[in-house]
Formats: sequence, structure tokens, C-alpha cells
Amino acid sequence: MSDFKINQKDLFFILKEQLGYGKLCEFERYESLNEDALDMLVNEAIRFAKGVVSPLNEIGEEQGVHWENNTVTCPKEFKTAFKAYGEDGWTAAVRDPEFGGQGFPTMMRIVVNDLMYGACQSFNMAPSLTHGAAHLIESFGTDEQKQTYIPKMYGGEWAGTMALTEPNAGSNLAALETMAYPEGDHYKIKGNKIFISWGDHDLAGNIVHLALARIEGAPEGVRGISLFIVPKYRVDENGNPGEFNDVVCTGIEKKLGLHSSPTAALAFGGKDGCIGYLCGKANMGLAHMFQMMNAARINTGVSGMSMASAAYQHALDYTKSRVQGRDIAKRKQGSVPIIDHPDVRRMLLWMKGAVDGMRSMIYTTAFWADLAQVTTDPEEKERCTMLMEFMTPIVKSYCSDIGFKVCETAMQCLGGYGFCKDYPIEQYLRDSKIMSLYEGTNGIQSTDLMGRKMHMNEGAPYKAFLKEITDFCEKNHAHPGLGSQVRFLKDVMDDLQEMAREMSSRYSADPLQWASYTYPALMCFSEVIMVWRLVDMAIIAYDRAQKSGKKNDFFRGKVAQATFFTDITLPHTQARARTCTRVDREVVEMADNAF
Amino acid sequence: MSDFKINQKDLFFILKEQLGYGKLCEFERYESLNEDALDMLVNEAIRFAKGVVSPLNEIGEEQGVHWENNTVTCPKEFKTAFKAYGEDGWTAAVRDPEFGGQGFPTMMRIVVNDLMYGACQSFNMAPSLTHGAAHLIESFGTDEQKQTYIPKMYGGEWAGTMALTEPNAGSNLAALETMAYPEGDHYKIKGNKIFISWGDHDLAGNIVHLALARIEGAPEGVRGISLFIVPKYRVDENGNPGEFNDVVCTGIEKKLGLHSSPTAALAFGGKDGCIGYLCGKANMGLAHMFQMMNAARINTGVSGMSMASAAYQHALDYTKSRVQGRDIAKRKQGSVPIIDHPDVRRMLLWMKGAVDGMRSMIYTTAFWADLAQVTTDPEEKERCTMLMEFMTPIVKSYCSDIGFKVCETAMQCLGGYGFCKDYPIEQYLRDSKIMSLYEGTNGIQSTDLMGRKMHMNEGAPYKAFLKEITDFCEKNHAHPGLGSQVRFLKDVMDDLQEMAREMSSRYSADPLQWASYTYPALMCFSEVIMVWRLVDMAIIAYDRAQKSGKKNDFFRGKVAQATFFTDITLPHTQARARTCTRVDREVVEMADNAF
Repeated sequence: MSDFKINQKDLFFILKEQLGYGKLCEFERYESLNEDALDMLVNEAIRFAKGVVSPLNEIGEEQGVHWENNTVTCPKEFKTAFKAYGEDGWTAAVRDPEFGGQGFPTMMRIVVNDLMYGACQSFNMAPSLTHGAAHLIESFGTDEQKQTYIPKMYGGEWAGTMALTEPNAGSNLAALETMAYPEGDHYKIKGNKIFISWGDHDLAGNIVHLALARIEGAPEGVRGISLFIVPKYRVDENGNPGEFNDVVCTGIEKKLGLHSSPTAALAFGGKDGCIGYLCGKANMGLAHMFQMMNAARINTGVSGMSMASAAYQHALDYTKSRVQGRDIAKRKQGSVPIIDHPDVRRMLLWMKGAVDGMRSMIYTTAFWADLAQVTTDPEEKERCTMLMEFMTPIVKSYCSDIGFKVCETAMQCLGGYGFCKDYPIEQYLRDSKIMSLYEGTNGIQSTDLMGRKMHMNEGAPYKAFLKEITDFCEKNHAHPGLGSQVRFLKDVMDDLQEMAREMSSRYSADPLQWASYTYPALMCFSEVIMVWRLVDMAIIAYDRAQKSGKKNDFFRGKVAQATFFTDITLPHTQARARTCTRVDREVVEMADNAF
Repeated sequence: MSDFKINQKDLFFILKEQLGYGKLCEFERYESLNEDALDMLVNEAIRFAKGVVSPLNEIGEEQGVHWENNTVTCPKEFKTAFKAYGEDGWTAAVRDPEFGGQGFPTMMRIVVNDLMYGACQSFNMAPSLTHGAAHLIESFGTDEQKQTYIPKMYGGEWAGTMALTEPNAGSNLAALETMAYPEGDHYKIKGNKIFISWGDHDLAGNIVHLALARIEGAPEGVRGISLFIVPKYRVDENGNPGEFNDVVCTGIEKKLGLHSSPTAALAFGGKDGCIGYLCGKANMGLAHMFQMMNAARINTGVSGMSMASAAYQHALDYTKSRVQGRDIAKRKQGSVPIIDHPDVRRMLLWMKGAVDGMRSMIYTTAFWADLAQVTTDPEEKERCTMLMEFMTPIVKSYCSDIGFKVCETAMQCLGGYGFCKDYPIEQYLRDSKIMSLYEGTNGIQSTDLMGRKMHMNEGAPYKAFLKEITDFCEKNHAHPGLGSQVRFLKDVMDDLQEMAREMSSRYSADPLQWASYTYPALMCFSEVIMVWRLVDMAIIAYDRAQKSGKKNDFFRGKVAQATFFTDITLPHTQARARTCTRVDREVVEMADNAF
């Protein structure tokens, strides 16, 4: 029952009509491509997601992963898929052809992940982490390291991980204890990592851990952390996996969801036999890792959105086929499909807007990220970079929390059946819950947004964002179809500017009170972005419909989701913005023993 | 790790300080009791919940229930506990001593369930359904039926169920197809039921199904439904389980949660060997069943709240012991417990208010239900009955949806650990999700509230509720500590009255538009009730603290949770109330193929 469902028309509408992603091919880096080629990639990705990845979702859930004798065994179908994923070019679709990449615009990675995560989150984490690890080597490694690792990782032969967390260093990496002792051209690694996604498995011939550790004698805190390449098997002179490198999987977590994604505890060098290679500069590990972490944060939002999208599509299909109850307005005789019940339609329309808005928010961010790389205009580069900085914690948090909420709402559409494993929604609900928790909890994201992002470069990320929205409102405030939504958006933005000013003044003067309301503040900004993206799509659809002069349900749906979402969301944004600047200090002053 | 946690002080504060539940003992029916006896019952229930029921939560999750050869096997600890539960008087704590009850005020059933559901939802459903089924016989059965079934059911020997749902008759019982053919003093029953909680198991010597079926030739729709007693084993002349009664368990559901509560599909009379006995009047089955269904709806809210309460307590403990990150205001050196982080405290304070408010909402409703039975004053009886009618769909829906939200928030406090099965919160999250789905989805509850309850007896339930809130606001609007919250509440109530008027006018004139917004309307009323209950508690606490003149963290906590919850909730209530009366009709007019 867990076949992957996606509304391709919605997806292409964002890419082609809203963003005009073909424009990317006008830049030098992508000059060999055109919009047709991008379209084809998306269509191929849909085919691969449906044909190869989607079946894994149920297989993985049924069989799970097994840890025994310090190794993890996965369903055999995963191994086949992992190989095909690399060989067919999905792992490195957007990477440099020099190392086996296909050279597609970097934003296509997000589109591909959208499809693959929606098809099977557990599985797609494996190639996605592999990509991230290899890309770190590509960015910071030596030529030899690049040649040794990258082609095999991009090609589906080897896998990679991101090994940061330790029992006492979760959110706070400053407390990291894993050590690296210099020894010739390499280091001896010693320490324990936990919560390493795909930290051990049998999908690939080798697992290349990109691990953080402290070089002996390094400064305390985050300034003494370095990045290491630590393969599970040492690479022999022929470039093949050789001797075991003393990276032992000491267990895997039992979890609420993602049952076919092994979350491993790893002991590096328990028998003093673990060798690592410095990647990039000593003590710059955290800075290097941020490349992967920022991508991981965006991807976390993608996952939340993709599973929400799939859950919504399943709920939609269910409501069209499940017959129960009478039509409240007696428009039909006898029992009707439950999509005829207004309360069910209310849930569907909210989910539709939420999913489409999140997808647009994410694709837009990915588009900016791409532009920032390819543009030759320094101002445009700066604008896009700053926008991306602003969006990263928002995409991560909003799409994880609202993605989960969509899964919950999708389940609600099924009534009691939603609780049953006969339908895939309960798995989406479970799998998606991790998104608000890992890659920095959403609370941490909110302090990143309201702290660092509001204040770095004299507030450049915030200013860039403000300008986008303000320009949009100015341009469209008199639009015949969506003008009132645009003006509402403008009013709310005024409120948010007020709120942001007040919060900024508290940032240093009263950090405790400030930090009590960073999360609701993040939600406020997220909601205006959602409305902005939805209304933008609606305006395009409205104008198209006007031009064609014909009744078009698809375009009308875009308008309807935008007006509905705006009207039921922005009043809450305004309400919440006011609460962010409360002067009462209950959160701060509450005695611990009074909770 | 899943030991049951409850804040007894909070619980008793509602019972003793806010409601003064000892007053019930002034009525004739309870004259043999006093407040001390009630307190003792609560304390004993806590002891039983912790000692006997709580261990089942983890045992049940680990072992699950197994269906083989048409029978269900449960962990053996469940059998022992079920017997003890009945023998120790918990099943029938509030029932008539004539049939083995203990004669406690009926509201104590809610208090006992609060504790037992919080300790193990899966298990407590078994005695709770047994109680409900026996109570139906007590209300509508013949003397012989009462003598045959009730003492054994209340005493923990036999179990009971509520067998309504069929594959094509879920929310819509009018479509019920199970048949009853008259045969002497009994009926032959034939039909299939699904989703029968505890529909088969090995906890008891017999299972007594209270099943809905149509007597041959009965009218179509809900007016042709009758209630039957259908035991799994026919009762022999000595009152013991005898011949198998052809009630076959054809399977159990695989579910998101409640893994140790078997959800059975039952075939009645597949071999023509199933006998049932009419309970109450022919064709009055649905009306009779409503007694159990209303209780079940309240209990569903109790479950949502209880699991939220337990999840919150676990999160609270975790945040006090988990050390991670630095104090943002540098009040302490080094790493601090995460309860020091304002964003964590924000979540804790919201959860505290949500749990305490829901508990108060529920206990208040139970108190009214009790008063309605024992009072001799017909006006008071009417008032309490109408209040209870109004509250039932609110308790069911709000406490299920917000209970789940609390579990989600509790998980958020644990970061990545919250996703792991080492902590009990992920189980609370899963187990609690069913509450919004069964016993009538929350959407259905919202049409009950905004339709039936707003309009029955010329709007008597709504008027009774309005008077309670209005009186409260009038009395307390100038309170020195909570006056501004009271005045805010009054303002919002004015908005809600406006909204209710508009919705009522749409109820018949434009039912589709009306039904598009019944759920948000229910949420609005729920939130003012939450605020009302929290501010009421805060006023009591404030006044106590003033009198004692000493700093008292407990009392200050009650005030803080009320002001915080009010200020961050009511602005949203106002915002949502406006959306309920929107004139735009996207929900109704959206083309099905545009979703």
C-alpha cells in the first residue's frame, strides 16, 4: 500500500512557472544544459523514486535492520538499490563530472531528494549522507583523498557518514571528546560516537566516516576540532578496501521510526587500531563541517515536506474512495465519498496549501543557493547568499514541524484506519518526527535565526529577506485577484518588523527573555514566507487563467489554496508576533520546582 | 524507564481546592462517605497505578499481543492485573454495591481512569470497556441478565466490549448490517464487526460483547438498531462459561500504537451458532448505547490528557538531569541542565498549563455529571446536565488533539533521545494518537458541538456554558492578580458569541460553509474553557499566597501557568474565531480534481 504518490504538475509548476529554473542554464557553468534536460532529470527521478526507491519503504519497515556481532545487516533490496542509485548518477547528479558527477544545477539535488525522501526516507539517507561526506572531501580534501574516495562514493560502491555526536556532545559540539593522535602521515583516532545515521551497514564495500575529533594538544571548545576521514576498512595500494580499521559498531538505536535506517553507536580505535586522515585544515573541522550541516538542515526540511506531500496524496486518494455518511447539504442521495464532507475538505485544502507552500519555499531557497554559486554579479551573489542564510533555519524548522502536522492531519482524514499499518500514513508520521529533533533541534534553529542571522553582517540576511517581501508586496498590492492577500501580507510584515526590532534590542539586553520567544518568532517569519510563496503562485495561476479565458481547475486550485491559507494563517501570525514581545517573564522566572 | 509519573499535588489541588469534591458527600447518595475517603481512594488508585498497572506499559509494548488459531494471547502479567483490578474494586469503584460496586461518586471513575490510563492505556481499556458494558446491562438489562453478568464483570472474572463498528459502518452506524433473528427467548446473531477493542483475549473467563444488530424486519437506518448481549461462551445453568458461542476472532489490527490492546475483527455466527440476548428495548439500541458512547468520549479525552501528563512529567525530569550547553545569560559556569535554556522552559510551561487546564476541564465536567445525578434541585440538575452535554465533544476533541501535541512537545524537550525507545515518550506519542480518531473523529465531535449542542433545547447547553463563563468574568474582572486575564477572557467570549451567532444562522441556511469551520470553532470554545479553568485555579492560588504572606513556588506556578497560557492562547482564539465566519467558500467550491 505504500506506493509513492506525488503531484507532478504541482512540482513542475513551481520549477517552471514560479522559478523559471531553466534560466539557470543561461549561466556558464550549466551552458551545456537546457530546461528540457532539467525536466527530463525530474521525470527520471520520479521514475526511479517510484520504481526503485518506493518499494523499499515497506520492505524496510517489515524487515528492519539487524545488529549482531558488531555489524548491521539490511534488507538485500537496499543493497541493490544503493548500487543502482550511485551507478545511475543520483548520488552525484549535481557534482563535478571530474569525479563522476553529472554536473546538473545544485538545486536539482533538492528536487531529487524531495522525490527520493518521499519514496523512502530511511533508504535515501544512505546515499544522501554518502554524497555529503564525499562532497566534504571534494571541498577540503587533498587531491589524493579526492581520487581515493570520491569516485567510489559517488558511484555507489562505497558509502559515507557524518560522525559528529557523542554521548556528552549532542547540541553542544564544544564538549567533543574523540581524540586524534599524530602518527606519521595520519592520526590514530580514539573515541565514541553515537546517533550516527547509517553508521554501519552492508550496502557498500566500505564506509567512509567524516568524523570530528580533537588533535592532541588542540585548544578546548569548538576551536580545537578537526575533520578526519576515517574509513571502516583501510584502503589498500590498489584503492580497494583492505584491513579492518577498528571502527566497531557497538549497537544501534531502537527508534520511533526510520526502522530501516540504522542509527549506530561507533567505537573508533577501541583496540588502538583506528587510523584517520586529516581533511582540510587542523582545528577548522567545525567550519568545514558546516558545509555538510547546512545542506543537512535544508535536507531535513525537504524530508519533512516530502513525507508530508506523500501523506497528503495518500489521504486525498483515500477520501475519494472511502464512502461513509450522507451529504450534509443533501446534494446526493445515499452515502457519499468522504471528500464530500466539508471538514474533510478543510483538512485537505490546508494540507494542499501547506505542502505546496513548503515545496515552493524550499525550491526557492535552493534556487537562490544555486544562483549564489553561478552568478558573476557580486551584488546578486551577496543577495542570494544572505537569503539562503536567512532561510536555512526556517526551512529546517517549519518544514519539520508542519510536515509532521500534515502527516497527523492526513491520518485524521482516514479516521480509525489511519492508525492501522495497512495504510502508509502511520509510517510517514513516525519517520517524519525525527526532523524537528536532529540536525539541531528546532529550538536551536530559532536562536540561529533570531540571533546569528538577524545580526550577522549588520543584519544582511534579514534585510535581504525584507526587501524580497517588500518588493513583492509593492508590485502586487493592487492585483485584481490576490490584492487583498498581498495587502494583508504587507500589514503582517509591518508587525513582524516591529517585533524583530523589539527582539533585537532584547538580544543583548535581556537574552533570557529573548530566548523565551525565538521559536514563535521563527514561526511568524515562516508563515509570511509561506503566504508569500503561495500568493506568488496564485498570482501566476490567476493571470494565466485570465489569459486563457477558460475555467481551469488547476489554476483555480492554486488561487483557492492561497486565499484559504493566507486567511486562516496570517491572523495567527499577527497574534503570535504580539506574544513574542511580551514583557511578562513567567518562562524565565518560574521556579524549577514549580513546574 | 516507563515508570508512571504524576504530580499528585496538582491533581489534589483541582479536586480539593478548585472543585471542593468533598461537597459531593453532602448528598444523600454519598452520605456514608467524606472527603477523607475520597482522598484515600485517589491515593490508593495512585498506588495501584504505579505498582500494578504501570509495569504493564513496557511489558505490553515488548511482548505485544498475538493472534493465532482465532484467539488472542496477551502477556500473562495482563491477566493477573485484570483480575486484581476487578477484585480490588477499581472496575466498579463508582457502581452500585448491589452488584459488587463500591458506591463512590461517579466522578471518581474519571479520576481513577486518569491514573490508570496514564500508567498503561492499552491495559486500562480492558477493565474500562468491561465496566462500560456491564453498566449498560445494569441500566437496560433484565434482572436475570444483571445477576448473570454484572457481578462477574465488575469482579474481574469476565470482560466486556462495545461492538459497534463494521467495515461499512464506521462513523455512520445507520449502515449497520449485522442481523438478529428471533429464536425463542433469544436471537441468532449473524454479522461481522471490526475495530473491536479488546474484542478477544485471554484475560478473563468470558467476554461479554454488547453488540449492535438489526432485528429481522426492523426499520432501516438508526431506528432499526437493537442492543444485544453476546457472550463468547454461553453461560450454563450454574452461571459459568459453557459452550462456545460462535464468536470468532478473525484477526487483529497492526497499529501505530496500543500494541498490547488487541483490536479485533469478530465474526458473529459464521457457523450459525451465535446466540444473543436483547438488552433493553428493540430498535432502541443506539439510544441505549449512547450512555456508553458518551462515557467513552469523555474517557477518550481523559486518555489524551493522562498520557500528556505522564509525557510531560518524563520530559520535565529529563530536562532537569540532562546537562548540555551553556547558560545564555552566563548565570552559571560550564554546562547546565537543559531546563536552564529558555526555549526548553517555554515548552515546559506550555505543557504544564495545557495538562493542568485539561485535567481541570475534565474533572470539572465529571463533577457536573455527578452533581446532575445526585442533586434534588431540578434547576441544578438541568444546569449540570446541559453543561455536560456541551463539554463532552470538547473534552473528547481538545484533550485528544492537545494531548498529542503535548506528547510531541515532550519529545522535543529530549532532542534526538526523544525519538529513541529508551524513553517512554515515543510510546505515549503513538498510543495517544488514536484518541482523535476513535469514538467519533474530532471532526464529527465538532459538528456535534456546533450543531446538536448549540441548538438542542433552544440552545440550553450553550446558554448554560455562557452563563458559567459570564458569571466567572463578572465576579473576577477586578481581581488584583488575574484581573487582566479575566477581562481578556471576557473580550474573547464576546467575540465567540458573535461567531456562534453567525455560525448558527449558517447552520440551516448554508450547511456546507458551516461545516467547513466547525472544527476551528470547537477549538475556540475549548481554549476559552482552558483559560477559564486555569485562571480560576490561579485566582485560588493567588488568594492563598496573599493570605499566607509567604513566597510559595507552587502557588506562583499556578499563577504563572495561567497568565502565560492565557496570553499566548487567547490571541489565537480571537484570530481563529474570525476565520470561522469567513465568507470565502474555497473549501466548498474547490473542485475535487484540483486538490
